[in-house]
Amino acid sequence: MPTATAVDPCDFVIFGGTGDLAVRKLLPALYLRDRDGQLTDDTRVIAVARAGLDEPGYRHKIQSELGRFVAADLLDNETLDRFISRLRFVSIDLTEPSDYVAVTDTLTHSPNDIRVFYLACAPALFGPICAALGAQGLVTDTARVVLEKPIGHDLASAQAINDAVGAVFEERQIFRIDHYLGKESVQNLLVTRFANTLLEPLWNSSRIDHVQITAAESLGVGTRGGYYDKSGALRDMLQNHLLQVLCLVAMEPPTYVHRETVRDEKLKVLQALRPLTNEDIKRDTVTGQYGPGLAEGGVVAGYREDAENPDSTTETFVAVKAEVNNWRWAGVPFYLRTGKRMAHRSSEIVVQFKPVPLSMFPDSDRGPEPNRLIISLQPKEEMRLELTAKEPGSGGIRLRPVSLKLNYTEAFQRRSTDAYERLLMDVVRGDPTLFMRRDEVEAAWAWAEPILREWKRTDRVPRTYPAGTDGPIDAATLVERDGRRWHEGAV
Amino acid sequence: MPTATAVDPCDFVIFGGTGDLAVRKLLPALYLRDRDGQLTDDTRVIAVARAGLDEPGYRHKIQSELGRFVAADLLDNETLDRFISRLRFVSIDLTEPSDYVAVTDTLTHSPNDIRVFYLACAPALFGPICAALGAQGLVTDTARVVLEKPIGHDLASAQAINDAVGAVFEERQIFRIDHYLGKESVQNLLVTRFANTLLEPLWNSSRIDHVQITAAESLGVGTRGGYYDKSGALRDMLQNHLLQVLCLVAMEPPTYVHRETVRDEKLKVLQALRPLTNEDIKRDTVTGQYGPGLAEGGVVAGYREDAENPDSTTETFVAVKAEVNNWRWAGVPFYLRTGKRMAHRSSEIVVQFKPVPLSMFPDSDRGPEPNRLIISLQPKEEMRLELTAKEPGSGGIRLRPVSLKLNYTEAFQRRSTDAYERLLMDVVRGDPTLFMRRDEVEAAWAWAEPILREWKRTDRVPRTYPAGTDGPIDAATLVERDGRRWHEGAV
Repeated sequence: MPTATAVDPCDFVIFGGTGDLAVRKLLPALYLRDRDGQLTDDTRVIAVARAGLDEPGYRHKIQSELGRFVAADLLDNETLDRFISRLRFVSIDLTEPSDYVAVTDTLTHSPNDIRVFYLACAPALFGPICAALGAQGLVTDTARVVLEKPIGHDLASAQAINDAVGAVFEERQIFRIDHYLGKESVQNLLVTRFANTLLEPLWNSSRIDHVQITAAESLGVGTRGGYYDKSGALRDMLQNHLLQVLCLVAMEPPTYVHRETVRDEKLKVLQALRPLTNEDIKRDTVTGQYGPGLAEGGVVAGYREDAENPDSTTETFVAVKAEVNNWRWAGVPFYLRTGKRMAHRSSEIVVQFKPVPLSMFPDSDRGPEPNRLIISLQPKEEMRLELTAKEPGSGGIRLRPVSLKLNYTEAFQRRSTDAYERLLMDVVRGDPTLFMRRDEVEAAWAWAEPILREWKRTDRVPRTYPAGTDGPIDAATLVERDGRRWHEGAV
Repeated sequence: MPTATAVDPCDFVIFGGTGDLAVRKLLPALYLRDRDGQLTDDTRVIAVARAGLDEPGYRHKIQSELGRFVAADLLDNETLDRFISRLRFVSIDLTEPSDYVAVTDTLTHSPNDIRVFYLACAPALFGPICAALGAQGLVTDTARVVLEKPIGHDLASAQAINDAVGAVFEERQIFRIDHYLGKESVQNLLVTRFANTLLEPLWNSSRIDHVQITAAESLGVGTRGGYYDKSGALRDMLQNHLLQVLCLVAMEPPTYVHRETVRDEKLKVLQALRPLTNEDIKRDTVTGQYGPGLAEGGVVAGYREDAENPDSTTETFVAVKAEVNNWRWAGVPFYLRTGKRMAHRSSEIVVQFKPVPLSMFPDSDRGPEPNRLIISLQPKEEMRLELTAKEPGSGGIRLRPVSLKLNYTEAFQRRSTDAYERLLMDVVRGDPTLFMRRDEVEAAWAWAEPILREWKRTDRVPRTYPAGTDGPIDAATLVERDGRRWHEGAV
């Protein structure tokens, strides 16, 4: 049932082909694109890993994993058979350059065809893998490399990774993935802003009161405690996902939506982020760490137990009041927050417009609520416009809030594709519009790093919040002292 | 089951209590307000008519008519018994002043209480009835009179009626009803505009391309042929309902929404309507008359047969391009149209915004549609915002139109009250906000009358259109020569 135009044939090589990301996200996404007819018959998926599996063993493993990570109604034997037969498995030591000849041997396409190298492995390996690919002569003009976050843990380490990858690949060949940008509702933000005339006249500090960007997870750190304890919420989520979303909300209209144009505009936003002074960091950043609490229908452990570090001061929650210092946005706060073990899994953008200058309806027992545009990324992808309407009835004119909704799945009567499905096909097509350019990543670090440094200098200890709640009380204070509130139901 | 605050006790007197309007609209509306607990126990409904019925006969008739004109799920015996027991019947000759003593005798409340005189009868009787009420001493300070359209057939006759009624009642006591203003979706237009900050910055000639106001009926003139043949679509619908709706779309924000303030602003719109020159009337007004055609599942007669006037040149369809000559609206056409025997029963306001300056999405096979705010009055009361969204999928960014909807009944999970329910209670409460003031009616005539005069001078013969179609082709030409189209699905 081909429902999409096929992309060009390619060898899709996944370094870390047995890892969590490959198994949970990349292979299910490729399977679903295969199901929709987007992969040519001769496209191969080549898993590279250290694990001592053979190809039949790998295929068997993936067949069973797809059963876990693809919805049952999207699994069919015909696609499964076809997809599994695309899989190749190469077992090498990723740090041993001479092993890479085995990768070369597995490539089935000519050097003029597209080859994608997806680095689904620890960032420490990004440099060595790229060097080995270069040494092995695998980096042809049509080769692409995909990097997953974290790209560095500060500006210098990000630059080091970018230098190492950039020594082998040209910038146009480097796809730094941020799966938030692959979400339908995030891309639709571009369309909503730039294919409609309604919003642009309102989209500035004259009409918008403030913006909230929330990414709340209900899960804890799970098995990622080791990595997470060196990272924390600011590095893991805010520096990348939340700032990228902020860019799409705040960017100027590009000349047209394409490759560098969008990234140029996003970069300008990152460069316009007002640097936080030490005083700002004290007042406008909030950190938290989940303690034991109630979640998933029972008592769950606190972060320190999950991370097996009883003295950890790593933040599992961060809220920051940011500002974009340009003509459009000066004076409009962007409140960002993200946390683990929150009350609900919920990611959303709330654009709150200024209140009416004066309530004009004396009969109403309440004034109008401010208008809000709410773009929900999780758990469902939805856009809502919150307006005030007349309550029906024969009395005077009484005001009530109403929502005008657009739910993607309902509106288009089709499955919303997963972010990875979209982004992997963009890689094959060579379209970098929705990927982070080097200068973006580094500009984001340039803004975020001083916060980390100041927290360290002042020995900031995150405030404990019970698992399954909305984060530390300071986060509420952060917005309430400005006379505002976090959008209810967001976390 | 009281769901509304009761209004003050009153004697509600309906002149023409056996007529179509009373039976189909007024008494069902009063019944429903009774059911919701809005009428006090001692409120009486007094029907005055020439018909030779007695009170038991009238009560019997109304009990059975309510069964036809109230939805079955809203009929309950308790309310029915209570409502029927409120009814009084007075049979008099409406043109015989001395008969009115019988009306006086039936009033049960003190002169300080509210009395409503609803003139649900021929406009020729408005003056005589008011004079008789005055002579009889019935016009107390708390008395109100309600006039139904048509209020005149041109400016002079409207002034004559207003003079006659105004000789007895003060303007504050005179309620000129336009049931379009009682519709939830029309009132919600006020709230949408003035309790939200999203629309006001867009609500002007910089952002709005044009406005369409359509009132399409699927029925023919039915038994009203005699009246209608002397009236026509312009007098019957456009001069009142359509212009009133136009006023609410175009008016400036009042200081607050209350009594005179809204009417002051509506008057300013009527006064700002650009007078049509004879040249304009030739080019910018379209008339039609339905011929035989297919409707109601069969072949139906043409208007001339319905009206029993084989030579009639009365228009059953009219379309006019109007303009509001003020700073906000100069250059924005308001296309108005109304007709009988159209393809569908459908009334709506379409506010079409200007198109995007440039399409920014090279991957899309189509550019964005202009945004539209659609306020549907009939057959369902609904507000829709038509936007462009991203079509979900893993390809490039493709644009598709979507609707963000607000359906009143669904949103509020309750029955939408009928316009008459609302307006009758406003009369009892003495709230004239949604009624036409004398100066409004006369300003509307001042604008409309030259059109009628010019049609007459040039012997305009309406173009025939088959019953069950969208009206004469000239109506399409009227907007298409401006590079626009009537909103599809509107008629």
